[in-house]
Amino acid sequence: MTHSVNSDLDLMLSRVIKAPRELIWRAWTDRANFEQWWVPAPAKCRVVDMELRPGGSFVTQISENGADFMPHLSACFLDIDDGKRIVFTNALVGGWRPAEHPFMTAIITLQDHPMGTEYLAHVMHRNQADRSMHEELGFYDGWGTVAEQLATLVEGRDDGRPTSSEVTG
Amino acid sequence: MTHSVNSDLDLMLSRVIKAPRELIWRAWTDRANFEQWWVPAPAKCRVVDMELRPGGSFVTQISENGADFMPHLSACFLDIDDGKRIVFTNALVGGWRPAEHPFMTAIITLQDHPMGTEYLAHVMHRNQADRSMHEELGFYDGWGTVAEQLATLVEGRDDGRPTSSEVTG
Repeated sequence: MTHSVNSDLDLMLSRVIKAPRELIWRAWTDRANFEQWWVPAPAKCRVVDMELRPGGSFVTQISENGADFMPHLSACFLDIDDGKRIVFTNALVGGWRPAEHPFMTAIITLQDHPMGTEYLAHVMHRNQADRSMHEELGFYDGWGTVAEQLATLVEGRDDGRPTSSEVTG
Repeated sequence: MTHSVNSDLDLMLSRVIKAPRELIWRAWTDRANFEQWWVPAPAKCRVVDMELRPGGSFVTQISENGADFMPHLSACFLDIDDGKRIVFTNALVGGWRPAEHPFMTAIITLQDHPMGTEYLAHVMHRNQADRSMHEELGFYDGWGTVAEQLATLVEGRDDGRPTSSEVTG
């Protein structure tokens, strides 16, 4: 990793996923795969934009009833290191334009691990207040839940139910 | 150019500089050169950070009296296309962290021109209010003045005084 972590401003979630990096990368970068795990079930996700390049638009929607979709994430990809790292921020929208409601930058890193892949989400905020708010809004529960859904998908478990003992973050 | 312009949200400044792209690129990317033109004279500029890579910190200071330096720009480079394009934003700081006071993203483009180089500054805002404020704060005068200072430097004119007739933006 070439980036540094500031524990006063950042939130981190890591877990080991028992699948090769390539599978996790595909689950992140293939729209149909991504929609299966990006929001906590039973809510549904729809990918509006996923332009996997620096400056590319990254927009998702969420639906509680599977029919009516609302805005979820409106962000901009900043860096794509194929198979290894994805950086995006909602401080910008597609084309690098400043966003109306900036809040966080996320660096998603995949690293080889003896049991599969270490999945790391490093989320940066502008100040301690935003970090605290994000934690109180349920960062660990929310990002933990969807990381578990991602693991369930790529580990080939078909029960579709999270096994909470595997959440390490 | 691969980016699009939204005239409701963006401000543009362009001018022809009678020098090759390489010279202008050097004046942009060499700290000592850059400090000579980045703020309107007689104010002085100091480069604190100029990490020319995506995610790199870009911080400058300004001094009215040449002794006491104050914050000027605190930004993050987003894309560096060698010799051709520089993208930075103050919606982020170094390492892509969200900034406390986001306002603009700038795309600086150098294009070959029969008379030398077309210098284009495309500045994007989140909404019309920010665009209007930037215009009222003197965008054309400010960015025009320093583009003229840049031209004076790379065109080898040693009078150091802007020739306003050459400002085309």
